[in-house]
Amino acid sequence: MSFNTFGHLFRVTTWGESHGPALGATVDGCPPGVPVAAENLQVWLDRRKPGQSRYTTQRREADEVEILSGVFEGLSTGTPIQLMIRNTDQRSKDYGDIADKFRPGHADVTYWQKYGIRDYRGGGRSSARETAARVAAGGVARAALGALIPGLTITGYLVQIGDRAIDRERLDTGQIGENPFWCPDAETAALWATDMDALRKSGDSVGAMIEVVAAGAPAGLGAPIYAKLDTDLAAAMMSINAVKGVEIGEGMGAAALTGRDNADEIAMGPGGPVYASNHAGGILGGISTGQEVVVRFAVKPTSSILSPRNSIRKDGSDTEVITKGRHDPCVGIRAVPVGEAMMAAVLLDHLLLDRGQTGGTRGAIGPG
Amino acid sequence: MSFNTFGHLFRVTTWGESHGPALGATVDGCPPGVPVAAENLQVWLDRRKPGQSRYTTQRREADEVEILSGVFEGLSTGTPIQLMIRNTDQRSKDYGDIADKFRPGHADVTYWQKYGIRDYRGGGRSSARETAARVAAGGVARAALGALIPGLTITGYLVQIGDRAIDRERLDTGQIGENPFWCPDAETAALWATDMDALRKSGDSVGAMIEVVAAGAPAGLGAPIYAKLDTDLAAAMMSINAVKGVEIGEGMGAAALTGRDNADEIAMGPGGPVYASNHAGGILGGISTGQEVVVRFAVKPTSSILSPRNSIRKDGSDTEVITKGRHDPCVGIRAVPVGEAMMAAVLLDHLLLDRGQTGGTRGAIGPG
Amino acid sequence: MSFNTFGHLFRVTTWGESHGPALGATVDGCPPGVPVAAENLQVWLDRRKPGQSRYTTQRREADEVEILSGVFEGLSTGTPIQLMIRNTDQRSKDYGDIADKFRPGHADVTYWQKYGIRDYRGGGRSSARETAARVAAGGVARAALGALIPGLTITGYLVQIGDRAIDRERLDTGQIGENPFWCPDAETAALWATDMDALRKSGDSVGAMIEVVAAGAPAGLGAPIYAKLDTDLAAAMMSINAVKGVEIGEGMGAAALTGRDNADEIAMGPGGPVYASNHAGGILGGISTGQEVVVRFAVKPTSSILSPRNSIRKDGSDTEVITKGRHDPCVGIRAVPVGEAMMAAVLLDHLLLDRGQTGGTRGAIGPG
Amino acid sequence: MSFNTFGHLFRVTTWGESHGPALGATVDGCPPGVPVAAENLQVWLDRRKPGQSRYTTQRREADEVEILSGVFEGLSTGTPIQLMIRNTDQRSKDYGDIADKFRPGHADVTYWQKYGIRDYRGGGRSSARETAARVAAGGVARAALGALIPGLTITGYLVQIGDRAIDRERLDTGQIGENPFWCPDAETAALWATDMDALRKSGDSVGAMIEVVAAGAPAGLGAPIYAKLDTDLAAAMMSINAVKGVEIGEGMGAAALTGRDNADEIAMGPGGPVYASNHAGGILGGISTGQEVVVRFAVKPTSSILSPRNSIRKDGSDTEVITKGRHDPCVGIRAVPVGEAMMAAVLLDHLLLDRGQTGGTRGAIGPG
Repeated sequence: MSFNTFGHLFRVTTWGESHGPALGATVDGCPPGVPVAAENLQVWLDRRKPGQSRYTTQRREADEVEILSGVFEGLSTGTPIQLMIRNTDQRSKDYGDIADKFRPGHADVTYWQKYGIRDYRGGGRSSARETAARVAAGGVARAALGALIPGLTITGYLVQIGDRAIDRERLDTGQIGENPFWCPDAETAALWATDMDALRKSGDSVGAMIEVVAAGAPAGLGAPIYAKLDTDLAAAMMSINAVKGVEIGEGMGAAALTGRDNADEIAMGPGGPVYASNHAGGILGGISTGQEVVVRFAVKPTSSILSPRNSIRKDGSDTEVITKGRHDPCVGIRAVPVGEAMMAAVLLDHLLLDRGQTGGTRGAIGPG
Repeated sequence: MSFNTFGHLFRVTTWGESHGPALGATVDGCPPGVPVAAENLQVWLDRRKPGQSRYTTQRREADEVEILSGVFEGLSTGTPIQLMIRNTDQRSKDYGDIADKFRPGHADVTYWQKYGIRDYRGGGRSSARETAARVAAGGVARAALGALIPGLTITGYLVQIGDRAIDRERLDTGQIGENPFWCPDAETAALWATDMDALRKSGDSVGAMIEVVAAGAPAGLGAPIYAKLDTDLAAAMMSINAVKGVEIGEGMGAAALTGRDNADEIAMGPGGPVYASNHAGGILGGISTGQEVVVRFAVKPTSSILSPRNSIRKDGSDTEVITKGRHDPCVGIRAVPVGEAMMAAVLLDHLLLDRGQTGGTRGAIGPG
Repeated sequence: MSFNTFGHLFRVTTWGESHGPALGATVDGCPPGVPVAAENLQVWLDRRKPGQSRYTTQRREADEVEILSGVFEGLSTGTPIQLMIRNTDQRSKDYGDIADKFRPGHADVTYWQKYGIRDYRGGGRSSARETAARVAAGGVARAALGALIPGLTITGYLVQIGDRAIDRERLDTGQIGENPFWCPDAETAALWATDMDALRKSGDSVGAMIEVVAAGAPAGLGAPIYAKLDTDLAAAMMSINAVKGVEIGEGMGAAALTGRDNADEIAMGPGGPVYASNHAGGILGGISTGQEVVVRFAVKPTSSILSPRNSIRKDGSDTEVITKGRHDPCVGIRAVPVGEAMMAAVLLDHLLLDRGQTGGTRGAIGPG
Repeated sequence: MSFNTFGHLFRVTTWGESHGPALGATVDGCPPGVPVAAENLQVWLDRRKPGQSRYTTQRREADEVEILSGVFEGLSTGTPIQLMIRNTDQRSKDYGDIADKFRPGHADVTYWQKYGIRDYRGGGRSSARETAARVAAGGVARAALGALIPGLTITGYLVQIGDRAIDRERLDTGQIGENPFWCPDAETAALWATDMDALRKSGDSVGAMIEVVAAGAPAGLGAPIYAKLDTDLAAAMMSINAVKGVEIGEGMGAAALTGRDNADEIAMGPGGPVYASNHAGGILGGISTGQEVVVRFAVKPTSSILSPRNSIRKDGSDTEVITKGRHDPCVGIRAVPVGEAMMAAVLLDHLLLDRGQTGGTRGAIGPG
């Protein structure tokens, strides 16, 4: 990862700001011959786009993606794919009031300090609008994975909003699309609706926790030490706006386990090793085991809130900040498709890296 | 990060296995004129080296570092610095028994599947011995930081072993060197000693949580989106063996906060902005605020344990695995200097990146 | 350099094809606060654009650049700058005839073999239209260099077309803008006009040699071994379409020199070392000396010609290829602004790298 | 390429100086299961090592390579391979005289200016001794290529010393090993012997031109624009000490050709396209054609000569420089195995990149 690029062989460079004319992603290193069509990418973008329920920002962006290069007669050519999304519903005047102020908990102050210049309209480059470009690029990654790993599924959902977590006994992925929270637990979803209504009235925001699971990835993806699959997943998720923590498998909870409990015991199955449990989150020594790859990340509450907070102006004078704009009371909700997109991009990148180095061959396990 | 290299301008490539002749780090991009001497690097290595208490592996390695290049008359020349550490106390025969077995929770199985070949002696490349090379390289980073950011301190300590966490009311960094656990809370340290004695007797191991704090880093380190300071810290920590989760500031706990609580309010201080709190862990929008940079990571329990666990052999047949060798019952303890080394390397890298792009200038805050 | 990206800190990723909707460059790592305006970039693009004399392709492209991101109130923000150029004068039907044929000397056959898919319209990604994106990005590099190295000049010109070279005794940079060949020698320019008229009539094309000189670059840019300034310049120039050779200073002629003749003797001048000659082309050990940096590269003749050449179709059958389209009889002519752009990008990248690693300090020469 | 690393997937980082304790290469990304043994690498090192005839430096270095990591039971494990070569015959006192002087034509002055510190003994990092590490790493690349592309050959030879070139009519690769100049033309080799004897007596040095040919590389290696096979070959060769020019196929001579002459006409052969000529040097659009890949590079004369040249001291005072040491009168001679090693490393890297992105499939040519 370097400045605005991530990935080794499947490389994504995003560009654009919240209130500029457009934003997008330059996708380099896609295998050739992958079906890539705007309408297929749009499916993923539509899941992330704002204004779909009263629990997300009311900014109205169509988030229509245009493919400007790298696709010929519906197939990727192996050359860079430029994906562009026009911004259409900027209301920059909302931000005039904060041009000289620094929102607490926001990148305003650090961008100013580092660069001495800052596009204050909607947070500029630090806006979560950047994640639309990731979702578009993730759609390309999914299309390539569809051809290379048939049967692979990537599923994201919310497991916590504020201090209310789902009940894992009730986890049912069939529920995810049935509520505005990507919640796999219908009872919790109902409670979140009540929670969020109260929160919106109070002019506050709240954090959330997202889990993304990839099922069907083969064993052998990843590489030792600094290109571990979990290293790249951690970087990918932490690079999303507002993310403050990333976990693989047991995550921070691994600190509390004993070795006896943590060991995922192995038996021989028909197609290779099978595991009695998945504390590892599908990754051992930085390399996938063939189990589900399980990642969780926490998104902090939106810092643009209607509640006044103390801050300063550029000239050092005291002020109170209230951010009007149109903001997500829980930006974590729309982070679900973003987390899925990052998972797709990282898995594809590691698949290409693996067949680059090893040719995709595998050490055999089983009777000769 | 790419295979066995991390960093952008200050780049570290580590090499070597647990039971090969040597291991080391190639450090590239170090600023010239930095005092680098083996005895100064040794100070850091001695903190990580095994066999220093009954709570770590009894393998006896001097971990003496040799500088093979890049230093002339005691100063770095700006060319690559090769740091080599000989392995001296290998007991490979301990491993004959597991040459054909896969330890549950260990990289044995994934290395075999990916590469079709595996140095089973001590885990080969997946051994925590690799972290000695990181500590040596981190020593170089510290020396450079010493010249570039006088007053910067980097302090690591354990905050949890198993299910017992420190009491933050009693956190006293002066205690860290006074017990074998890098514990900043004397009462908890005493309890951990009891816990660990029981654990060793039972042939089990346990996880831990480490916190690393950098104080005195300037505002402005980091870059948007994919080279965020927190992205690189997350990758750096997750790349350490056995780490399963990484947090910045509030970390996973950010999910439970409201925006009102999470906002670190800002006031004007004599030298720039001062913050009423540090939920952000010193990083906003991927860029340092000038506050303490706070990172935590969880280390899973050592998977090489004396308790028998079910597994399979290469030929697919069932077996039980008991790992004799000499292992850390809590490998998290020795991860403290490793976490510090990674913090040092990441901060230096971002300092060099920042002065590369911006020249180190800063947007002014305060009356003209 | 990696796929479609070049540069280390100042990184340019180009995208787009000859006959797609648009092409462009994503410029990442630009210092903040640099004045960047479309009309200033247009100056450079206008020098490269087709159809300006009867010696270049008659395709009519306005090559108007749009800035989609990374610039706020006329200044670079330090975030990625997206530069887009719409294609407006495609005549894809010209290419229907070669959809199944491979032009000799052209990338048609290798793109097909590698990717199994090929945008045959105008050469797709292998078209020299890609170089418009480099020129736009080079304009950003020039703007940054203007602020960082006042007085730096970058001057490109043709030194040879076919077997007719300029007379260096008559080299006068004032002449470069006075003829359609970027020729610094008026007499040779007149002869080239005659040569080229004959060539066009015969339906043939011809190669050329370009020299690019940067004056005013400070000593100290570059780095040992694999990031040498000359390594990066060689890669930058060789990456331009149709380039087959690159020289620094004496270039291939260095093979014929003796050490006595080749040594650029050094004396002390008022501001540092002065050199009696510049066989080195301004680079010693990969690092600039402060003299003029001198690069030359050779461009092969356009392979799209009206003269029939033997080739095959995709199905393996024999055919003759005549390329109608609208092509440059000497594509080397329009390579001059491209070579200048690459020089600008490489110099800026190395300036940023140098101040990243060394802080821009220099070893003193002279009496204490 | 970045500082001291080259390659994308097969990555080589070299380290070490002329007069330090050792030098070497960290080879990362090697496919697993490749036979790697010190004695096989030694074969290539022995071809480069000094003191083998009166035409090379009389420094006596055994150049014995030790493998410190990444190989288990004779096979590469896929983890980093550390190759170390001890320096054994340093005579640093030879250099006391030039500690404060800058040799004309040498990196002395630029290293000093850039870094403010310089290991003056034997040129430190800028010494051609660094190339021993490349040759060792190239031996690993050759071993991997041997498994992946059976029948591939890489052959280097000198085509010019001073102003005397070989006669291509007499080019016979069988002659290369029969004379101390890697000369494929026996008559020219005899003349070079006479030339060089005279040169040595006069205390002077001379340049040379090397050609490296790879036969048997498949079509499809390379990638568009900035990771072109020729871009990477140009960078690889230009990164070798003292190289001032690089050519692919016709090279600088392409400037003089017409499109009609330059077009390598294509016919259908039994296994795919066959070409009537190879002006392209086996590369079209940055991608290999399956023909011989042909690269040439020019090496300037050694700047360390016994003839006095005018220069300055660090304090700015005038001086004459005579370099005693033990130097190659024509350093180009020993560059032949170095050029071969770089060719091997680049081809392997692109082979891995290609199978990473495309899976190694190829667009079919021929009847259905």
